[in-house]
Amino acid sequence: MASTDDQTHGDVADATSSRFNSKNPRGTMPDARQYKVGILGATGTVGQRFITLLASHPWFSIEALGASSRSAGKPYYKVAKWKQTTPIPHAVRDMVVQECTPQNFAKCAIIFSGLDADAAGEIEADFRAAELCVFSNAKNYRRDPHVPLVVPLVNASHLSILPQQQSLHSPPLKRGFIVTNANCSTTGVAIPLAALEKAFGPIEAAIITTMQAISGAGYPGVPSLDILDNVVPHIGGEEEKMEWEILKILGGITDSDGGLRAFDMHARSPLRVSAACNRVAVIDGHTECVSIRFQRRPPPSPQQVREAMAAFTPDAQALGCPSAPRHAIVVHEEPDRPQPRLDRYHQDGAGVSVGRVRQCPVLDIKFVLLANNVSIGAATSSIINAELAALKGLVPHVGDEMDVVR
Amino acid sequence: MASTDDQTHGDVADATSSRFNSKNPRGTMPDARQYKVGILGATGTVGQRFITLLASHPWFSIEALGASSRSAGKPYYKVAKWKQTTPIPHAVRDMVVQECTPQNFAKCAIIFSGLDADAAGEIEADFRAAELCVFSNAKNYRRDPHVPLVVPLVNASHLSILPQQQSLHSPPLKRGFIVTNANCSTTGVAIPLAALEKAFGPIEAAIITTMQAISGAGYPGVPSLDILDNVVPHIGGEEEKMEWEILKILGGITDSDGGLRAFDMHARSPLRVSAACNRVAVIDGHTECVSIRFQRRPPPSPQQVREAMAAFTPDAQALGCPSAPRHAIVVHEEPDRPQPRLDRYHQDGAGVSVGRVRQCPVLDIKFVLLANNVSIGAATSSIINAELAALKGLVPHVGDEMDVVR
Amino acid sequence: MASTDDQTHGDVADATSSRFNSKNPRGTMPDARQYKVGILGATGTVGQRFITLLASHPWFSIEALGASSRSAGKPYYKVAKWKQTTPIPHAVRDMVVQECTPQNFAKCAIIFSGLDADAAGEIEADFRAAELCVFSNAKNYRRDPHVPLVVPLVNASHLSILPQQQSLHSPPLKRGFIVTNANCSTTGVAIPLAALEKAFGPIEAAIITTMQAISGAGYPGVPSLDILDNVVPHIGGEEEKMEWEILKILGGITDSDGGLRAFDMHARSPLRVSAACNRVAVIDGHTECVSIRFQRRPPPSPQQVREAMAAFTPDAQALGCPSAPRHAIVVHEEPDRPQPRLDRYHQDGAGVSVGRVRQCPVLDIKFVLLANNVSIGAATSSIINAELAALKGLVPHVGDEMDVVR
Amino acid sequence: MASTDDQTHGDVADATSSRFNSKNPRGTMPDARQYKVGILGATGTVGQRFITLLASHPWFSIEALGASSRSAGKPYYKVAKWKQTTPIPHAVRDMVVQECTPQNFAKCAIIFSGLDADAAGEIEADFRAAELCVFSNAKNYRRDPHVPLVVPLVNASHLSILPQQQSLHSPPLKRGFIVTNANCSTTGVAIPLAALEKAFGPIEAAIITTMQAISGAGYPGVPSLDILDNVVPHIGGEEEKMEWEILKILGGITDSDGGLRAFDMHARSPLRVSAACNRVAVIDGHTECVSIRFQRRPPPSPQQVREAMAAFTPDAQALGCPSAPRHAIVVHEEPDRPQPRLDRYHQDGAGVSVGRVRQCPVLDIKFVLLANNVSIGAATSSIINAELAALKGLVPHVGDEMDVVR
Repeated sequence: MASTDDQTHGDVADATSSRFNSKNPRGTMPDARQYKVGILGATGTVGQRFITLLASHPWFSIEALGASSRSAGKPYYKVAKWKQTTPIPHAVRDMVVQECTPQNFAKCAIIFSGLDADAAGEIEADFRAAELCVFSNAKNYRRDPHVPLVVPLVNASHLSILPQQQSLHSPPLKRGFIVTNANCSTTGVAIPLAALEKAFGPIEAAIITTMQAISGAGYPGVPSLDILDNVVPHIGGEEEKMEWEILKILGGITDSDGGLRAFDMHARSPLRVSAACNRVAVIDGHTECVSIRFQRRPPPSPQQVREAMAAFTPDAQALGCPSAPRHAIVVHEEPDRPQPRLDRYHQDGAGVSVGRVRQCPVLDIKFVLLANNVSIGAATSSIINAELAALKGLVPHVGDEMDVVR
Repeated sequence: MASTDDQTHGDVADATSSRFNSKNPRGTMPDARQYKVGILGATGTVGQRFITLLASHPWFSIEALGASSRSAGKPYYKVAKWKQTTPIPHAVRDMVVQECTPQNFAKCAIIFSGLDADAAGEIEADFRAAELCVFSNAKNYRRDPHVPLVVPLVNASHLSILPQQQSLHSPPLKRGFIVTNANCSTTGVAIPLAALEKAFGPIEAAIITTMQAISGAGYPGVPSLDILDNVVPHIGGEEEKMEWEILKILGGITDSDGGLRAFDMHARSPLRVSAACNRVAVIDGHTECVSIRFQRRPPPSPQQVREAMAAFTPDAQALGCPSAPRHAIVVHEEPDRPQPRLDRYHQDGAGVSVGRVRQCPVLDIKFVLLANNVSIGAATSSIINAELAALKGLVPHVGDEMDVVR
Repeated sequence: MASTDDQTHGDVADATSSRFNSKNPRGTMPDARQYKVGILGATGTVGQRFITLLASHPWFSIEALGASSRSAGKPYYKVAKWKQTTPIPHAVRDMVVQECTPQNFAKCAIIFSGLDADAAGEIEADFRAAELCVFSNAKNYRRDPHVPLVVPLVNASHLSILPQQQSLHSPPLKRGFIVTNANCSTTGVAIPLAALEKAFGPIEAAIITTMQAISGAGYPGVPSLDILDNVVPHIGGEEEKMEWEILKILGGITDSDGGLRAFDMHARSPLRVSAACNRVAVIDGHTECVSIRFQRRPPPSPQQVREAMAAFTPDAQALGCPSAPRHAIVVHEEPDRPQPRLDRYHQDGAGVSVGRVRQCPVLDIKFVLLANNVSIGAATSSIINAELAALKGLVPHVGDEMDVVR
Repeated sequence: MASTDDQTHGDVADATSSRFNSKNPRGTMPDARQYKVGILGATGTVGQRFITLLASHPWFSIEALGASSRSAGKPYYKVAKWKQTTPIPHAVRDMVVQECTPQNFAKCAIIFSGLDADAAGEIEADFRAAELCVFSNAKNYRRDPHVPLVVPLVNASHLSILPQQQSLHSPPLKRGFIVTNANCSTTGVAIPLAALEKAFGPIEAAIITTMQAISGAGYPGVPSLDILDNVVPHIGGEEEKMEWEILKILGGITDSDGGLRAFDMHARSPLRVSAACNRVAVIDGHTECVSIRFQRRPPPSPQQVREAMAAFTPDAQALGCPSAPRHAIVVHEEPDRPQPRLDRYHQDGAGVSVGRVRQCPVLDIKFVLLANNVSIGAATSSIINAELAALKGLVPHVGDEMDVVR
């Protein structure tokens, strides 16, 4: 099997035009109107990334930007300490930033939240209560039993919990909901694990050592004195998140006694996850060394694993999400790839890269994974989740008459 | 004056499509046929950059790749240790690499040379003698009195020396020539200096301290033990190159006694240049701190300097070179810009960024400059030079009948 | 002239034992008793450095540690986020941190202040008013016309202003005073400039471009996202500090009209200084590229400059300050030195390194300078200043009976 | 249990004087004469480290330096591209470098080899055949069934194979032998694994992910373009070395059928090791994330593991090797330690640091390890091995009369 690099990318011109998947261009939506979207936490790192990605999105147009009261009332370019490597998009440069209240976002069909955890809890709840559809990158609701934790290339099916989330809300909701995406390190590893479980059945154990980029900590984030010429072998709460979130994402949904549906946390087959998280002097791109053990005996060979990963096609691609990558998993044959500096921006960071698939003398298989933490590990996941929800009819267009209702 | 950033870039979609300047799209060439081009030193760092930039060029199509005999006869992807952040373009991936002899490049109208200095001298001379048009990034012929040293946004007029170069060749040449572009650090600073001389007359003195990226040294180039947590305050030969090349580039061409034309080395008004060159832990993008003294008294104010730089429009733009940047000089108003990591890839690195224009207590004006050493500082300069030569009718299309001649 | 490296350092054992200059061992002090010292801002970066340097000082013993009320009352090791590469010295590990009030430091003969500028102004004034001898690394009093700004290897003579500082205080002081040391970048360049003015007379102009280490910004200081793979060509207020402080340091003291003595700001001969300050990805050690013009015509040759620098012997050495370096200026002959990673810890960072002394085509001479910003650029300067003051009899020993007075 | 940091280091003065363990000062050797030592590969990275460490060694004095014929005949300082952060020791600065022949080292009792693998095989064999005692950092003889692979804090007992190595040599040797030390990554992890096996019995499995410093690759070593803002998830041959060497080091020596003694490769209890090796942007210090499974059920608790590590006292300490660390394993309690930048130079890098000892959800225990790859991971191991051999009477003093024999 050749490297899929060439199958994936084509030449530079292709790569440029590939930002949005052409399988499902805008015209094929049942309703060709654009969705107006709002961004909470718009001045922060994740917010800036949302803006960059959405500036040329075929379905979504930025309608409103929310930030703290300190920034509210001022033009965006004056309050954002813009740290992206492309300039502030014209369309938002002079947009006036608003406080994060539902009233200010009433015209938005979709809300993307890049809020910090200390603010996200209350604000996202308020927005949901106001019948807004919230796609959040924050951790606050990931463990909520009625909020789906969706890695869009893995468990789009978990969106099916949304009606229950709405009906259990007090008062019950017609349109509002919260969808979360996973921690950046979790997201990266969940994709190949999902591909392998699909092909070979349950995984029993995974030992994961991460080498995580500084951008994962936001801005100002990691002090340079802590990371230049250094490794910090600890990221607060990160290992616990990985060990827990993977179970929710890779698990299914079951009917529980009371007629309610519940996430089963991979209960069909116990999965033990051990994570060791490290910060390294890399700007973007989390590298992870993964060793896994399958339930199935004998386990698949490295070559079978490579093939299953390369062939993995998530629903997000099949359904035609414009931000989904062409290849969910790019499998490298070179012995020293993937590398964050060389591979993190392929497919705009919407897929993951895997390399060095080989036998593990202790478990079954080990490999190296690279995931772009600011793309598929954060904003891109939220956006594909919103695309999935739109395609599934879960996101209503917000018209002028609806504004009255609110 | 507001930052010109917004005038320059537009949103992300614009930025993407701006790789090639639309003023002079392909159809406006007198002859709509593509030029076939060859690349010497194709496996090296500069060669890889030529390939990346030319893969989607509107006029030029890659016809042949040259490298050392060690690589010759093998498909490109097997011999290039590809280190670009985009994959190898499809069109060249399986192209068979050839030895650098004129016969192997006979079908090429244009030869781009990314050869190392130790090989470039002889090979480029052979190619010129074989009536090929060579655009070289190597230093070997920069000091040749009949070879133009062209920073395409500065002294396109120096191409007028080419007929003399051809007629003095033994035997005289009909089509072959060598055009060189400048050292990466020289190129960056020559652009604003040219803008200022055009607006305010001669500059008398310039003190330049550079902080140069590691990519300027090629691959493997700078050992990591030398540059991590370090500054190396010396780059062999670099200061001498800067102090000499700037004079040739900013100078004019005069008629000398024997009827020959000669580069005057800025003789119309003495210009003293003092360079201090440092290597820093930056991947791409040379930052330069520049202090200058004008001949004119009183000197222009910082604001006048900013305006003159922002307004500077080189011939390459006016003529419609597709690889010329929209803005030759982007002037930043923010106090802490330009920065290599944030600004080096604007306009695909084809322009330069200037910031912190302020008075110098010792000379007149000081400012900070950023130039992308692998783009305008290297391959992009060669390519715009070739576009300029093509627009000026200096590059013949190579037809089959001409191959016979060779 | 050979590199003075070998003259300076000797072998490893020598280097190790050279932390304290043996010319004036403890016993030669008029009074062999130790001075008790207090450290303000003890939990910060500069405070940690003070502790590290003073832990084994032959004259000074740490008596009290001051920090904000948040830390007060707790053992030092619990409140200091210790970031030095050697462990917390035993003697202070469990010392209880105190609030920065003079009462808490009444037993101290000497106060070292590593306070931030926002706290230093009031606290240092209070300590002086309480008759304590304050040696401050903060910028607050550097521009005070009665406070000496002392680079200990340059202008120890400026301590002679102290009686005037005391007599002008309201009420007049018997023992208390404030001595400041200079900004880290200023300190580095002031030393060779002083050596050259001593040898060759006034310098007329200096253009200085710095490449400064991240530790200069303290902790957390520079965000890693700002400096990894980057240069930030701006450090707030730094250029102004350099351009002003150099004049005060290199200038003399004159009698003014009212019988008062005043710093003349190098008025005997105008000196223009132009600084361009950059932050680079280096942990410790500021590198500076310096071009200077002498008043004297013809100017000294590069070789004369090298010799004058190597021969420079400040008062601090002659007087026998234990923390003074053996060689104030180490002159390197190698073409690519000094380098921060290799040279910053020589002589415990108490001297400076100079290399690449050569002619400047615009001014007279250019060279590269390296100064360890956390040693001679900060805490070490304060400590040598205190040693100088003690040797000059300006610092009384504080006995128990004096505590009563306070 | 408190961090052992304070038990280990004491204050700065202690740290400085602790380079050599005082338990067995020079006078306690049976013969107070110094051993003359030679260094092969003296100009390389490991050779420079040998010189730095041996310059003030209480027993060993540098007598001869060997390098390639290109350097032979020249003073050391002219041919070594000295890259240490302390200057070249006086004693060797002008020493004339010699070719690596046994004749040139006849006066040496001990030979330290920092040769590259491509040269070490033949030269080390020649030196052994000439009755010289070779302590090699090269990999060539590590797998030799009669050459001990000694991590000095782990398996000093393996030196007992030396008489067999000598007797099987053709012709049999009286004094000459080769002792190797392990790969830098192997060495680091072998020490805590040995401590744990000593306390709790056999380990069954270990999964190790390394983040290795660039200095491990020597000079020029890793190109900066490969590692700045990057992770390279592959180091050629490293994983295989770790997975094999650990077995030889942690295993015992058994009597085989033919009366010969043989390394048993941990045969008493199978040990499976899985290594994933990565290069990161760190100058010195390999960080390793380790998960292990014990044979013993139930396994020891994290606290028991911490205590066993902190209490581990190797023979090298008990015997009084001057270069042995005071604490073989420093156990950190802080949640984010060890870190290479802060902890790698403790005890001159002669011990290892362990932190984050906690339960592993897949195996039993996981922890983070830091080992200084250029100290205990390389030259320091060779030196302690030589100290051990000297203490055990395996290294004869070489007198003048013996030179005649050769």
